[in-house]
Amino acid sequence: MLPRGRPRALGAAALLLVLILMGFFLFGGDLECERHGDLPADHGGRNRSDCVPLRPLPPKCELLHVAMVCAGHNTSRDVVTLVKSMLFFRKNPLHLHLVTDAVARNILETLFHTWMVPAVRVSFYDAEELKPQVSWIPNKHYSGLYGLMKLVLPGALPPALTRVIVLDTDVTFASDIAELWALFAYFSDEQVIGLVENQSDWYLGNLWRNHRPWPALGRGFNTGVILLRLDRLRQAGWEQMWKLTATEELLTLPATSLADQDIFNAVIKRHPGLVLPLPCIWNVQLSDHTLAERCYSEAADLKVIHWNSPKKLYVKNKHVEFFRNLHLTFLEYNGNLLRRELFGCPSPPPPEAEQLQRALAHLSEEDTCLEFRQQQLTVHRVHITFLPHEPPPPRPHDVTLVAQLSMDRLQMLEALCRHWPGPMSLALYLTDAEAQQFLHFVAASAVLSARQDVAYHVVYREGSLYPINQLRNVAMAQALTPYVFLSDIDLLPSYSLYDYLRASIEQLQLDSGRKAALVVPAFETLHYHFSFPNSKAELLALLDAGSLYTFRSHEWPRGYAPTDYARWREAQAPYHVQWAADYEPHVVVPRDCPRYDPRFVGFGWNRVAHIVELDAQEYELLVLPEAFTIHLPHTPSPDISRFRSSPTYRDCLQTLKDEFHQDLSRHYGAAALKYLTALQQPEAPQG
Amino acid sequence: MLPRGRPRALGAAALLLVLILMGFFLFGGDLECERHGDLPADHGGRNRSDCVPLRPLPPKCELLHVAMVCAGHNTSRDVVTLVKSMLFFRKNPLHLHLVTDAVARNILETLFHTWMVPAVRVSFYDAEELKPQVSWIPNKHYSGLYGLMKLVLPGALPPALTRVIVLDTDVTFASDIAELWALFAYFSDEQVIGLVENQSDWYLGNLWRNHRPWPALGRGFNTGVILLRLDRLRQAGWEQMWKLTATEELLTLPATSLADQDIFNAVIKRHPGLVLPLPCIWNVQLSDHTLAERCYSEAADLKVIHWNSPKKLYVKNKHVEFFRNLHLTFLEYNGNLLRRELFGCPSPPPPEAEQLQRALAHLSEEDTCLEFRQQQLTVHRVHITFLPHEPPPPRPHDVTLVAQLSMDRLQMLEALCRHWPGPMSLALYLTDAEAQQFLHFVAASAVLSARQDVAYHVVYREGSLYPINQLRNVAMAQALTPYVFLSDIDLLPSYSLYDYLRASIEQLQLDSGRKAALVVPAFETLHYHFSFPNSKAELLALLDAGSLYTFRSHEWPRGYAPTDYARWREAQAPYHVQWAADYEPHVVVPRDCPRYDPRFVGFGWNRVAHIVELDAQEYELLVLPEAFTIHLPHTPSPDISRFRSSPTYRDCLQTLKDEFHQDLSRHYGAAALKYLTALQQPEAPQG
Repeated sequence: MLPRGRPRALGAAALLLVLILMGFFLFGGDLECERHGDLPADHGGRNRSDCVPLRPLPPKCELLHVAMVCAGHNTSRDVVTLVKSMLFFRKNPLHLHLVTDAVARNILETLFHTWMVPAVRVSFYDAEELKPQVSWIPNKHYSGLYGLMKLVLPGALPPALTRVIVLDTDVTFASDIAELWALFAYFSDEQVIGLVENQSDWYLGNLWRNHRPWPALGRGFNTGVILLRLDRLRQAGWEQMWKLTATEELLTLPATSLADQDIFNAVIKRHPGLVLPLPCIWNVQLSDHTLAERCYSEAADLKVIHWNSPKKLYVKNKHVEFFRNLHLTFLEYNGNLLRRELFGCPSPPPPEAEQLQRALAHLSEEDTCLEFRQQQLTVHRVHITFLPHEPPPPRPHDVTLVAQLSMDRLQMLEALCRHWPGPMSLALYLTDAEAQQFLHFVAASAVLSARQDVAYHVVYREGSLYPINQLRNVAMAQALTPYVFLSDIDLLPSYSLYDYLRASIEQLQLDSGRKAALVVPAFETLHYHFSFPNSKAELLALLDAGSLYTFRSHEWPRGYAPTDYARWREAQAPYHVQWAADYEPHVVVPRDCPRYDPRFVGFGWNRVAHIVELDAQEYELLVLPEAFTIHLPHTPSPDISRFRSSPTYRDCLQTLKDEFHQDLSRHYGAAALKYLTALQQPEAPQG
Repeated sequence: MLPRGRPRALGAAALLLVLILMGFFLFGGDLECERHGDLPADHGGRNRSDCVPLRPLPPKCELLHVAMVCAGHNTSRDVVTLVKSMLFFRKNPLHLHLVTDAVARNILETLFHTWMVPAVRVSFYDAEELKPQVSWIPNKHYSGLYGLMKLVLPGALPPALTRVIVLDTDVTFASDIAELWALFAYFSDEQVIGLVENQSDWYLGNLWRNHRPWPALGRGFNTGVILLRLDRLRQAGWEQMWKLTATEELLTLPATSLADQDIFNAVIKRHPGLVLPLPCIWNVQLSDHTLAERCYSEAADLKVIHWNSPKKLYVKNKHVEFFRNLHLTFLEYNGNLLRRELFGCPSPPPPEAEQLQRALAHLSEEDTCLEFRQQQLTVHRVHITFLPHEPPPPRPHDVTLVAQLSMDRLQMLEALCRHWPGPMSLALYLTDAEAQQFLHFVAASAVLSARQDVAYHVVYREGSLYPINQLRNVAMAQALTPYVFLSDIDLLPSYSLYDYLRASIEQLQLDSGRKAALVVPAFETLHYHFSFPNSKAELLALLDAGSLYTFRSHEWPRGYAPTDYARWREAQAPYHVQWAADYEPHVVVPRDCPRYDPRFVGFGWNRVAHIVELDAQEYELLVLPEAFTIHLPHTPSPDISRFRSSPTYRDCLQTLKDEFHQDLSRHYGAAALKYLTALQQPEAPQG
């Protein structure tokens, strides 16, 4: 704290501060070093470059570059959390350089494309291409080959890029990354790498009998957070340098234990002048036997937390709760809120964002259906294959079950998995916090954990109406088989449906290019406890006993009547049915069939419009005689409740329908007339 | 950015920085002033005290004092959001000084008590006592009398307190409050108040014809964020000073428009030396005609956002989306995550927290019921009367409906309001984000918005098991009538139940101290569309027609059979029934009846144990012949699903039951034996 004496001159307090700062620089600055929580430096004693004065920042709007290596589904989720923490505190434009495998690229490209964060650019680099440069190094670390790729960044990143911050995917920011970037200013001419000391005794050796770590300076350095002067590394012949070092060390050492970190340390041991030691708070390491407490108990402020134990959040550490809270903050953080601009930093928004802004600006505040319009225009952040997923092997008649759900239907998933042994593509409409609950839900279920052929795509919630058709389109776009069964989460397929559908597709020769939609008749039960029929015969018996009904026969007979349940009872072979107004059966179609119309949000007419579209494109409607699903009861969705209670809601749905028909006429001309006239007929009596 | 030249000496870069800093102090420091985004100072030109050098911080662990005035339900919610933002960034111990009315005190005392944030102390001051000191001032501002109370803080706060940060309840922090506290170091000897310039032209006058603002220096200052040197204010005779100024101004001016702010400005106009102007980023004002853009478009970093328009988040401002995101961040932020310790700052945790830590430490990692044990021990953060609430007028036989729910049952609330016109006390188990959705839900419902006699108590989610009995106890403790109807959210009472219960209570003379529990028989329907019977006769007809069942007669007949539905059909008068094993009727009891046993978390036996307790305390069980409720169907809760699918879950429930019976024996001795023996009998056949 500043002394209490109060000089009268206005600027005097400021001058005093300058004097204190000068004292700090000239006389060792212990106060500030401790405030920044350096670990005692064993490698050559504390020197001035260990200490960082009161946080200078890079100029406003300077573009900061960050590189990460990311492979696979789980690491992609980690990267998102890391990026959220970075974006939360950042005030500068960022350029992310992501070295990825195909899986991570697919996920992260979709994510950033739909996230549309202003002043964030993302470039991808193919990890596959870099593999040969490191695959010769024997490595025992759990990060595998990808752990080594940080070594080749100077060659892999664009030649014009001179500085970059390199991060492990298991770090969390607790401060503005610009403060880290500012440390580049403290590099001497010779220094090329900024690193924090390793916060464990690993490199001191002798942790157990025959523990022989790679060579390092004192405790060595941790490579979870690196400042790289790429220009100087390239000039200095970094590639030869680390390859020579690694080759020579491997003559006496069996393999790296800590991947790139062992090699970085071996190089630094040979060339100590290359490294600028950074304050410990920039990489607080939470491994099992961490010495990090020395750092964080002294520091006023932690900047970056590093979960560098394979146990991650479950590491044993008496303060882990504290750090976990920080991490959970960003796991649960609503990423939509990070779509905020940087004031005063001109950065053109992505074209989609600009287009969206224009469209939103055109909406009238007076429009009674404004909520619908806004929801239709909303671009939801999408995280595809949120959990590990193995694509099904390519098979010509294979079919993926496609559905969408929100949190209140999670309990359907296990039953669905039991009834459908084939691939599924499911869109989940969740908040960021719910996505975490969903992960726990899957982890706690043996049935769900065992399935690698179910792809879960998280579509992040935004707006008040359930974007049902956008969700269906996300799930449909991610289906990888030639056919899709467009189902709903509350429908349980008959046990044999998956096999039966594939056989039918083959038998009906749909793969010859025949445009057909196979109708799967739906039934419903009102009972939560219900024993599912094992055959069509059993189903019919339950129907006759009044335990089952044809689907929505009371509330919405028009939706399913054209399936002709009476005929279905007797049918032995697939039969054609004709489209009729409001028909909305569940169908199996080729994957390249029309998308759902995203204008239908909330409750009502969303599936109907899709069937109209199929009919307009001249898909045959063929009912399968052995196929069936049964709808289980559930609490009415908020959207259906609003539909029932709000006349405005119903009026807006009517407006959407009208606009849909106008578009239909524009598209299909006179052929579309029948849809309009059909609608105007009174409701036919139902069998 | 620092020049590119790179001196070789290790400390040279640091020295360079010192030189730059010296240049900044000695030659005006425009660079840094702009980085901190000062508004151009119209009142006497920019001077050095406008500028603040690179953020010095108060010593680690220094206790910072913050004062706020808070009255009513809505403002209490605002305070919580403000406090969350403050806690998120803080690194110092805090002492909050809250001037409150009775409502806010009740809410905030419970909240902080259950929140148990380390290193946060809270003191309350009674706004009622301070009112006479300001009530003589005519004031037109929407904050009313409470808006003026900041003026009397120097007298109201403890005499030993020398410095305090005073905040309006409508500000949001975007940075560490310690940086604001550090500005006290820049006060000259004469200065006593730190304020940010007002970011509108209000005090310049002439905004419209006859616009006559109170006097101010230039644009004047905004009092949403104030640094007060309390010691000097007291020495300087602050009380006389502002009272004299106000009295004199009121000779020519009709009333204050902006409450305390007008008076602060009038005093400063007379004594300009009192004020230290603060950088604009510490109070970015988002009123309708704000000039704040001048501040935030230049600044690299915003510190405090001030929603100083009566429209709050709905204010018109082209950048409001940005600021709203910042605010939403803390509205939705999981406050449990703020229960994190301050490393290296020794601060004794509250006694409850310490006790809890000890209890948690005693749990064994091997215990298969660990999850249950942890859930039982969890102290949930509780925000009582989350929405405006008017207590019912005191009436001797009045009864409050008590229930608990989570998000998936919100849609029951409207129907419940239609069926129960009396007071309700409802505990809602929500995340912080869900609590916001709940607010929107209520605001969108005319039925719910119209009710002031429904008290909603938010219990914040933590842990994996639904703490059903803890929730019931929260709702029960907040009931304000002499009787409570211990119901469930899925039960719809008969339309006349509220009146009938009050009449029955009177008739049965329960207020004479008679210990009775009135049983309300429950029925159920499986249909979502259901027309509710208007009388017992109609109910019986539906029962005979098979449209209704007695409650849980299929799954759990033991739970309700002792009510003796056959007798109820014919009954004309209340009749006694005997306790039997597993009996769990819904009852009306005096408010001071035993609490629910909080050990029962998740599904199973939670109500059963309460009825046992009532019986052990010799409550009569009296069935009311005209009372009934009907259970509506809903999707099974996650807890019931786990109960059904997990043998461990069922075993743990059995363990809880056993422990409950042990405690019962300890409490009631031999009299409790009957509960144990009753349990061991085989299930009786049910009528």
